[in-house]
Amino acid sequence: MMEHASLRAVPFTDVTINDAFWSGRLQANIEQTIPYQYEQCKTTGRVDALKLEWKPGDEPVPHIFWDSDIAKWIEAASYTLATKPDAQLEALLDEVIALLASAQQPDGYLNTHFTVVEPGKRWTNLRDAHELYCAGHLIEAAVAHYQATGKRSLLDVICRYCDHIAQTFGPNPGQKRGYCGHEEIELALVKLYHVTGERRYLDLSAYFINERGQQPHYFDLELKERLKQGEKDRLAEFHRTVGYEYNQSHKPVREQVHVVGHAVRAMYLYSAMADLAWELQDDTLKQACERLWADLCEKKLYITGGIGPSGHNEGFTRAYDLPNETAYAETCAAIGLVFWAHRMLHLDCDRRYADVMERALYNGVISGVSLDGRKFFYENPLASNGQVHRQDWFECACCPPNVARLLASFGNYIYSQREEEAVIHLFVQGSATLDLGTQKLSLKQQTRYPWDGEVRIQVDPEQSARFRVRVRQPGWCRKATVRVNGEPVQPASERGYLILEREWSQGDVIELTLHMPVERVYAHPQVREDRGRVALQRGPLVYCLEEVDNSSDLDALLVPQTADFTQTYVQDLASGAVALSFEAQRLEADGPSLYRTERPRTSMVQVRAVPYCLWDNRSPGEMLVWLREA
Amino acid sequence: MMEHASLRAVPFTDVTINDAFWSGRLQANIEQTIPYQYEQCKTTGRVDALKLEWKPGDEPVPHIFWDSDIAKWIEAASYTLATKPDAQLEALLDEVIALLASAQQPDGYLNTHFTVVEPGKRWTNLRDAHELYCAGHLIEAAVAHYQATGKRSLLDVICRYCDHIAQTFGPNPGQKRGYCGHEEIELALVKLYHVTGERRYLDLSAYFINERGQQPHYFDLELKERLKQGEKDRLAEFHRTVGYEYNQSHKPVREQVHVVGHAVRAMYLYSAMADLAWELQDDTLKQACERLWADLCEKKLYITGGIGPSGHNEGFTRAYDLPNETAYAETCAAIGLVFWAHRMLHLDCDRRYADVMERALYNGVISGVSLDGRKFFYENPLASNGQVHRQDWFECACCPPNVARLLASFGNYIYSQREEEAVIHLFVQGSATLDLGTQKLSLKQQTRYPWDGEVRIQVDPEQSARFRVRVRQPGWCRKATVRVNGEPVQPASERGYLILEREWSQGDVIELTLHMPVERVYAHPQVREDRGRVALQRGPLVYCLEEVDNSSDLDALLVPQTADFTQTYVQDLASGAVALSFEAQRLEADGPSLYRTERPRTSMVQVRAVPYCLWDNRSPGEMLVWLREA
Repeated sequence: MMEHASLRAVPFTDVTINDAFWSGRLQANIEQTIPYQYEQCKTTGRVDALKLEWKPGDEPVPHIFWDSDIAKWIEAASYTLATKPDAQLEALLDEVIALLASAQQPDGYLNTHFTVVEPGKRWTNLRDAHELYCAGHLIEAAVAHYQATGKRSLLDVICRYCDHIAQTFGPNPGQKRGYCGHEEIELALVKLYHVTGERRYLDLSAYFINERGQQPHYFDLELKERLKQGEKDRLAEFHRTVGYEYNQSHKPVREQVHVVGHAVRAMYLYSAMADLAWELQDDTLKQACERLWADLCEKKLYITGGIGPSGHNEGFTRAYDLPNETAYAETCAAIGLVFWAHRMLHLDCDRRYADVMERALYNGVISGVSLDGRKFFYENPLASNGQVHRQDWFECACCPPNVARLLASFGNYIYSQREEEAVIHLFVQGSATLDLGTQKLSLKQQTRYPWDGEVRIQVDPEQSARFRVRVRQPGWCRKATVRVNGEPVQPASERGYLILEREWSQGDVIELTLHMPVERVYAHPQVREDRGRVALQRGPLVYCLEEVDNSSDLDALLVPQTADFTQTYVQDLASGAVALSFEAQRLEADGPSLYRTERPRTSMVQVRAVPYCLWDNRSPGEMLVWLREA
Repeated sequence: MMEHASLRAVPFTDVTINDAFWSGRLQANIEQTIPYQYEQCKTTGRVDALKLEWKPGDEPVPHIFWDSDIAKWIEAASYTLATKPDAQLEALLDEVIALLASAQQPDGYLNTHFTVVEPGKRWTNLRDAHELYCAGHLIEAAVAHYQATGKRSLLDVICRYCDHIAQTFGPNPGQKRGYCGHEEIELALVKLYHVTGERRYLDLSAYFINERGQQPHYFDLELKERLKQGEKDRLAEFHRTVGYEYNQSHKPVREQVHVVGHAVRAMYLYSAMADLAWELQDDTLKQACERLWADLCEKKLYITGGIGPSGHNEGFTRAYDLPNETAYAETCAAIGLVFWAHRMLHLDCDRRYADVMERALYNGVISGVSLDGRKFFYENPLASNGQVHRQDWFECACCPPNVARLLASFGNYIYSQREEEAVIHLFVQGSATLDLGTQKLSLKQQTRYPWDGEVRIQVDPEQSARFRVRVRQPGWCRKATVRVNGEPVQPASERGYLILEREWSQGDVIELTLHMPVERVYAHPQVREDRGRVALQRGPLVYCLEEVDNSSDLDALLVPQTADFTQTYVQDLASGAVALSFEAQRLEADGPSLYRTERPRTSMVQVRAVPYCLWDNRSPGEMLVWLREA
């Protein structure tokens, strides 16, 4: 058990990226998305709300989750500072942080909405009001800002707030036995524990996790109290339909078997559970995570790494319910899945976690933002009638800054390290410095992945030494060949990772060839919406058809079982991408008869498929991932 | 033009039926449905409401369409009296008619709801209040009762009411230029004209039809007036979404090209337009009907003869929008389609009208009632997840009595007649007496249709004479052979009818063999929900799979392109029916992988298909018409 709990991610601050696929995205994130999002926070009133000048009747009314938008922006901006100093941005951060500090109440409490809009209602509606959720994002922001700048300006504010929270919540007399309806603070407190070394933050996280779903149910008790105070339960009808599954408080967490409810909440909860399993060597939490993981991956995961098919609860429904055109598949949920998968990977270095992490990153996460970094999807359907397009911003603006903070810290996901072992999860051109315990190791990847499967890894230890390099052979890759210093080797494989253990010296080179043909992928037959359909995948990338390449009514195209796919690197997609071409049948509307005894005729047409993550960056139109098979 | 406007239906009173398919249905209708529906009208307060004793605060409140339920029951009961005297039923009719007569106001007005619930609101909301609609059903009831019994008790009451209506509505000063939001009275007035010979009833019908959709729009004017009176427009939001297309008043009727809106309303309107085209030899109305017919049959007709896919407007949406599981396909709408098709058939004796009439009668109409005559579908979907079942009754109970009156007068649809010509539209065992102008003709059909395609027609004129017998070769039948008195003949065919013109003598026999293989039917490729799917049809019957025969998850079955269908007459379906057996592939849920590169495996299973009209008469479960094709 817990054999790998010693594995740690190599932080993005020790990683540089210079990659054909990612660098454009990361640059757009820094140059466009992050400044643009500050402007959005400013013009929509989110920044000025921190001045606490709002009076009843003023518009707009500071919303319960506005603080979290600011926090995610601070977090994203801080990550960019950590790798790319920018005095102007740092000054802007100082300014916003000063505003945040000024909004803190004498007792440490810090929440715009409940300070000005609903004073006196603090902590009275944990189920719906996102108070601890906002606190969680403020914690992540504070940790990021401190790590990037060394400044304690926000960290100290937030520690005071957390101390207030730790006083307020807990099992002791006078404390509330509550926890948040929207998980987030639990994983944030683990980060705060890491930078401060203060065990009480870890304990508070564990308290929230352990208390969740216990009886008597806290949300019942607080609702009763609110009703007693004469309040109305505005969301009664909604909660009646979604139950406590909505916020994963239907059972104590160790008894949960099925992923349920709001998908982002679920991912943040499971991430915290995995964190605590690692920190506390808690096998019961790890096992709960493994059960939930299997349920997700075997029954509720879109091929794009999107999760949560339903808009009603922004989350999960029943097993195999994966509609395409109406897929909610919120960008934040796919990001949350990356967070969870990354943590699971550090409990067990098993490629099933890295495979899902990669699937989400290369498809359903990155689809959430346009190539120029200025437009966003909240929902990421797998089919569109042409009416679905990225937007500038959202009333509920959780996704754009979530993408921003993920991209700004993307380096986190590539490598891991532990005593005498370097692990390579993702193939991204660039370099990294790893800590092998005994010495530093420099790794340098050269690759055009995912456009091809050739990866050259230069291994540069400070001194020659024996250690392991563990390289993932992706689940999609059926055949990989490895050379070390030009010599073919046949490495052992452990849970999908190739084990290269030897005496390594400066300048040693691993050459990895991942065979990357176009694969026809079929869904489990219980996925009704995908029956008779096939998806195209090459390497980690799921492909789709777009109207701009194939004219309208994409669903009239049938992929022959013998289709021959031509892979071409083209310049007209993004900054270059591999497109797939093949001949398909197109159903012909021959004659007016509504019903006929002849099978509909088809004609052969040339079809072009493009990576799903690139869709809706050219002329607007239809899109389709799951193609009919002839 | 109008060449066939001399053709008239042979009334059901001149037809006797003794048929394997229909007689059980007709008997259940007389013995179960009609008495049962009276009980329902009684226990739900519909009968007693006629006493006008309702006072504010009483429950239930007489609904605006209650009178129409009573009227349709009277109509159905009268039809049965016409063919099967029943003193007890006749007495019950007298009793209900006396109540109706007692509810008539001194000025002739007759409407329960507006007399007791909303006095003073007469004719103020033609758009929504169904007043003229109820009047229309009362007219049809009065005509039926008079024709069945010779009694004028209801007819006189209704003529007084119609005279009041004719005074109220019209183009003259002091008259309202209105018409009903729910068409019905227009076709009813044509019937009243026929039995009374009073031209003013025909003129009133034509007035309503011609006024419909003219500007300034009457429903705008009356709404303005209601709002001026301080009333609220409770249905404003609904009407905003559906527009005047909902009640086909968006344009003058002669300018209408697309079937739109509430499907029952549309059918009743088009039926009246066809009636007036016939009566007035009005080519402009006929052409409008033909345009609307083409739009319906080429783009908006379910294979079952069901129409109107959407529950929102109980009606039509866009072309080729024919979802199966959510098909609304109201029973009343399919009945309305029979009414319209039957009228079109008398404008042009073209089998395309009879084909649709037959399709609806043998599938989407008769599916509306259980074999025992005591349970009813309001909606007739073409696929069910197992949760759809017939019900005892409905709050809005239009469908059950509509089925009842159709079945009670089913004989109307089999034959037509004109000078020196007998026309056979449907193949139903029994006999009929036709009026050829010069003499009476007796026809006698012997057949097990639709279980097989052998039809023996004995032709018995009073005296030997030359005349035409026109026999429909159904559109589904690609090969028909004909013998007369044992000798093969090769008759000419006109618009799908075989023309048998010769000197006919008593005892002459036509033997018709309609080849009736199982047909694989495909929908137009624009019908997205049916792509990759096939329906099975044999003769006029559309088949479906039921869970009781094939276990659950019917949509996991794939019909091989080479499937060989075995037709077997079985005793365990209804009172005997032809079932189809064939080998199909069933998708197998092999292994837990949600995504895989192997095409899902299938195993061969034996499948049984049964006539759609018989579904949900055995164990409840799933049902599917459009089957996946391998």
